[in-house]
Amino acid sequence: MSIKLNNYRLKGILLLFILTGISAAHAEDGYRLWLRYDAISNKSLAQSYRSAISQLVFPARNPVLDAAKKELRSGLKGLLQHQPAEVKTATGNALVIGMPQNNSLVAGAQFKTVLNGLGTDGYFIRSVATGGKNCLVIGANTDKGVLYGVFNLLRLLQTNKPIDHLNTADQPSVTYRILDHWDNLNRTVERGYAGFSIWNWHKLPEFIDPRYLDYARANASIGINGTVLNNVNANALSLTNQYLVKAAAIANALRPYGIRVYLSARFSAPIEIGGLKTADPLDPTVKKWWADKADEIYRLIPDFGGFLVKANSEGQPGPQSYGRNHADGANMLADAVAPHHGIVMWRAFVYDNNVPDDRAKQAYNEFKPLDGQFRSNVIIQVKNGAIDFQPREPFHPLFGAMPKTALMLELQITQEYLGFSTHLVYEAPLVKECLDADTYSAGKGSTVVKVLTGKMNPDLITGIAGVANIGTDMNWCGHPFAQANWYAFGRLAWNPAQTSTAIADDWLRMTFSNSQTFVADVKKFMLQSRENTVNYMTPLGLHHIMAATGHYGPGPWDNNLSRADWNPIYYHKADANGIGFDRTTQGSNAVGQYAPQVRDAFNNLAACPDIYLLWFHHLPWNYKMRSGETLWNELVDHYYRGVDSVRAMQQIWNRMGTYVDSERFTEVQQLMNIQLNEATRWRDACVQYFQTFSNMPIPAKYPRPLHPLQYYKDQRFNFVPGTGGSN
Amino acid sequence: MSIKLNNYRLKGILLLFILTGISAAHAEDGYRLWLRYDAISNKSLAQSYRSAISQLVFPARNPVLDAAKKELRSGLKGLLQHQPAEVKTATGNALVIGMPQNNSLVAGAQFKTVLNGLGTDGYFIRSVATGGKNCLVIGANTDKGVLYGVFNLLRLLQTNKPIDHLNTADQPSVTYRILDHWDNLNRTVERGYAGFSIWNWHKLPEFIDPRYLDYARANASIGINGTVLNNVNANALSLTNQYLVKAAAIANALRPYGIRVYLSARFSAPIEIGGLKTADPLDPTVKKWWADKADEIYRLIPDFGGFLVKANSEGQPGPQSYGRNHADGANMLADAVAPHHGIVMWRAFVYDNNVPDDRAKQAYNEFKPLDGQFRSNVIIQVKNGAIDFQPREPFHPLFGAMPKTALMLELQITQEYLGFSTHLVYEAPLVKECLDADTYSAGKGSTVVKVLTGKMNPDLITGIAGVANIGTDMNWCGHPFAQANWYAFGRLAWNPAQTSTAIADDWLRMTFSNSQTFVADVKKFMLQSRENTVNYMTPLGLHHIMAATGHYGPGPWDNNLSRADWNPIYYHKADANGIGFDRTTQGSNAVGQYAPQVRDAFNNLAACPDIYLLWFHHLPWNYKMRSGETLWNELVDHYYRGVDSVRAMQQIWNRMGTYVDSERFTEVQQLMNIQLNEATRWRDACVQYFQTFSNMPIPAKYPRPLHPLQYYKDQRFNFVPGTGGSN
Repeated sequence: MSIKLNNYRLKGILLLFILTGISAAHAEDGYRLWLRYDAISNKSLAQSYRSAISQLVFPARNPVLDAAKKELRSGLKGLLQHQPAEVKTATGNALVIGMPQNNSLVAGAQFKTVLNGLGTDGYFIRSVATGGKNCLVIGANTDKGVLYGVFNLLRLLQTNKPIDHLNTADQPSVTYRILDHWDNLNRTVERGYAGFSIWNWHKLPEFIDPRYLDYARANASIGINGTVLNNVNANALSLTNQYLVKAAAIANALRPYGIRVYLSARFSAPIEIGGLKTADPLDPTVKKWWADKADEIYRLIPDFGGFLVKANSEGQPGPQSYGRNHADGANMLADAVAPHHGIVMWRAFVYDNNVPDDRAKQAYNEFKPLDGQFRSNVIIQVKNGAIDFQPREPFHPLFGAMPKTALMLELQITQEYLGFSTHLVYEAPLVKECLDADTYSAGKGSTVVKVLTGKMNPDLITGIAGVANIGTDMNWCGHPFAQANWYAFGRLAWNPAQTSTAIADDWLRMTFSNSQTFVADVKKFMLQSRENTVNYMTPLGLHHIMAATGHYGPGPWDNNLSRADWNPIYYHKADANGIGFDRTTQGSNAVGQYAPQVRDAFNNLAACPDIYLLWFHHLPWNYKMRSGETLWNELVDHYYRGVDSVRAMQQIWNRMGTYVDSERFTEVQQLMNIQLNEATRWRDACVQYFQTFSNMPIPAKYPRPLHPLQYYKDQRFNFVPGTGGSN
Repeated sequence: MSIKLNNYRLKGILLLFILTGISAAHAEDGYRLWLRYDAISNKSLAQSYRSAISQLVFPARNPVLDAAKKELRSGLKGLLQHQPAEVKTATGNALVIGMPQNNSLVAGAQFKTVLNGLGTDGYFIRSVATGGKNCLVIGANTDKGVLYGVFNLLRLLQTNKPIDHLNTADQPSVTYRILDHWDNLNRTVERGYAGFSIWNWHKLPEFIDPRYLDYARANASIGINGTVLNNVNANALSLTNQYLVKAAAIANALRPYGIRVYLSARFSAPIEIGGLKTADPLDPTVKKWWADKADEIYRLIPDFGGFLVKANSEGQPGPQSYGRNHADGANMLADAVAPHHGIVMWRAFVYDNNVPDDRAKQAYNEFKPLDGQFRSNVIIQVKNGAIDFQPREPFHPLFGAMPKTALMLELQITQEYLGFSTHLVYEAPLVKECLDADTYSAGKGSTVVKVLTGKMNPDLITGIAGVANIGTDMNWCGHPFAQANWYAFGRLAWNPAQTSTAIADDWLRMTFSNSQTFVADVKKFMLQSRENTVNYMTPLGLHHIMAATGHYGPGPWDNNLSRADWNPIYYHKADANGIGFDRTTQGSNAVGQYAPQVRDAFNNLAACPDIYLLWFHHLPWNYKMRSGETLWNELVDHYYRGVDSVRAMQQIWNRMGTYVDSERFTEVQQLMNIQLNEATRWRDACVQYFQTFSNMPIPAKYPRPLHPLQYYKDQRFNFVPGTGGSN
């Protein structure tokens, strides 16, 4: 570019741009998530990136490559304030991107081996010196691999990493990396705390909300490749042609970002929208109805992913209504989508009509006997723990127990039991705790992650699903830090070996700032945040003691829901003798569902980790803990420590004002105030409630509760989010 | 500013800023409404503005003045890329802003007269030459006047108007300029088509959504000074302390923008949340309960505006439940808020338990006899027409009929009967039609606007209310052009004498572009758009023939709601003999509720305007119209013309791509496609349905309907927005 202006005019224009720079800054509403692409503030680093990427070789002749290229260009423009010259063949330092079939450099012999190992979604990034110039090559076998590679490079720039000696080969550990939307057709979201459903069914198919594209970009950037559009508590209407046409419009919008659409299927749909008399999975008319429905769907959505099914659970219909089992139901649907290469994700979260002696045992009891009976395109979706997404649970006993069956992990990103969208809780440590757990199913080292990634049985399909925390809120997730949970989910689904700290590091840099002080201080409290919440909600293995209605706040006294195993008192079993659920071999023997080594560790008080103590044992209030304290004192201490840690987090955040825009800084401050109030409510309510059984004093060193127990029992909250509306 | 850089670095920085300018552009999501403040593209004009405002004298020492100053600075920075030097006394061309009490120039003798005439909300803007420099002075008696003056100046800049010889004195025509939110506590919005409620009750009072401030800015910019936070179909919970504390937090956020908070009050609240046995307005315990409740509210919200009440209507409780009348009910509440200077807005939209011979007569019958019986702080809220916000209605007969009672106009900004948020309908002409109607109540010239602005009786308080079309959608209103209806409402409430065209002109320039071609072409179809919609929905005085459930699309055949006067067939009365509602002196005599001159004009076929023909007359299908055509042929013609006009609008818009960002251009295109589909559906459904009575052919010159009548009758729409959820 040549500039010929007299100095006066140049100064004027410069002044103009400086002012533009100031005024054009849009309010920091969080909408851009971690894909901000603001100019890199380290000038020399930006300059080194610019000279390393002075040219671009990136042939793009299909929608996926197009999307990747558009993202790259907008990313480079923002981050580097620079657009590399686009060339057919590099004549200087260049970024070269492609597949063997469209790029001669990538097709070269030097990349043959790496490409062979990358599968369909993988990519490599390699620094190559040829003929006096340095090239950065992103190569993949498919357009999707290219897309993921481009996002990885952008992440390296966003996090200010060196790019001059790269030699990365990366591919996902599981095939299906899926967001489950518990979104109803009326746009309410079950367990949604970030507004309402982003899917605007009324205006579909004609109106494509620009938000759909930004949703797709965000997901692609972290490797998510599937989305279930509607709630597992499904409405059969979503399978009518009227709604399928709308789903197809969404599928068209997401496709260039490598994301497939799935639907939750209501098992009784053949009756409700098909006019049949039965939904019996062995009935030929039912089989035909589903096969025809699958054909219809695939005509509209050629790459439709398949069905997610919640059957015979919490009132949902299922095969058991017809005397069949889960395999009968799942296989029937699997046969319908198999000709189109679709899959069926069948949930193991089931409720028997009869209240069991131990709720925790149910999924194992129903599914374990069916091992080996499912079609190869069925994958059983198993929650991380056997109860229900609690702040902490031991790993689900089904992992490792069904060696001939594909199992996928179901996580809950949305914070149903983790303080909704007002508590800062970074969930990666919770996920890792499950992934790294050793099932011992085939001896030591048989971790959950090995089960999930097909290391135990390479014939099985693999996947990880997360219940989305996404809604219509400007910042998508309600809490600026809740975005980190969406982000971490994707990153861990792609590569479960990554550490919580590395992911938090990337996210903080991309979302807020590359400042060392900021990243170090904030990362520290992020990593601690889940344990904080366990402390002020459910320490020492307690679980499911939230308010029965709406799951908002504490309700350990609640006992009025129709099923015993929906009520908190069923779970904590506090009485004059002590507290905790006896799941030992002397109790419900839930420990018996684990491999012997695990069973013994949980069963044996001497071996059982404190964090699971009251999950597996009912213990007297004066039981002597490892610390030497009584159980009562240690329980109280956990609750008080939990609240104190929120205060400590606030103090750190209050120092971060210089690193963060005032909008998000203030938002987080306000939300932390809510979190502190609620943590205190949890502490005061639980400690005083349990005290009615322990009859032991709160040690004098702790401040007194703010209000008496009755105050907390009398509190009523109306219109708690995440509960309203028919589906 | 002095710049000393070598040329090389200067060029580099310049290049950087040019690129920044490109990349910093945030997606045009419509969030900024008409307050965009992008740089003025006419460089010489911008320069002339800059030199006229080289200095700023603006002492600001309270929150309202602070808000005004912040707005001014951000507006000037954006529009002019310029921040005037702030000085105590002008030494060059300056913008001088203030009140007599804080600014010596404004306090000068030359402004005494103008200030005397401005009241509390008015302001003047005047160009003044003193001592060789030119000053632009914005003066007002109050901080609110200053705020409105600042927004007016910004509008002049945004619309590229000359500012060198200004002499404006401006003040609102009515005191209460109010948005009614039909927002439920569960965040659904009754008749809301732009997402969900912006009030996030769950996170209040701690979390102040930045959206509240932008909402306040937008309202202040058009003179709106009050907002009713909750639905007229009210939940008594909103009057509990739990929710009042949250409402107070909203009030605190809106206060610096001159906006007061009001609440809809459920008449039976003393029973539901007060524990009383009755809500009888003459019962002393009830009176005391409301007085105490008012005291409680004013302790939390010292400038609380007052109550809005829907009583004895569509199932809502009211004084008639206790054998009392509307005056008894309204006065009791008025007495409760009077000590705090609050008001009661009491709706005239009432339903008797018995279905009347003519629904249109009901409000008049119940309220007219009460004229003179209401307290001075009660204002009766009367819809523009006697039925219910139809695409077209004659003015409400209550206007002019209650000379001793304060009446405020209730408009519906949200498009319940105007195609939701997918139809482009500019409503200003509809509002003007009502405002300019002559009631003849005190002789010729007794227009509705005179009634509303206190010209007929200066002792009465005055106001205009509009049911908001605002929701959580990124662009606030669902359709980019629906923003124009929020805008026009505020402008007309401030000054009903303004023309629809002038308001559209301002809005287009502020929202999209100052290009003459763009403004002229788009303004033309905006001004035509409401008539288009009348044509394809309810031409020639037809009304209330939308689908009975959800009010979405046509349903002239609907006849299954429990009350006759909720069903379309009650209103169009089509049969073999003809069509239309006979409201003449021979029929229901609704015409008798108007002044004689109006009555005769509507009653007499020769005088009755075509636009109201079937509102007042039942006429045979072959009735000869003024045009010479039969009624049937003309009816058909209107429907076809309506659809054609949507197509014409599309063609114009399709040429506007060069003037509008691609995001909003595409959005409008997609929405216009929906509008065309729906207009066609209205046409084909209505024409074919009425044909079953007329037995006359659709003239050959028109294309055939797309589908047979039964197709339209069979269509079912689920989860229609604006209807769901408990309140």
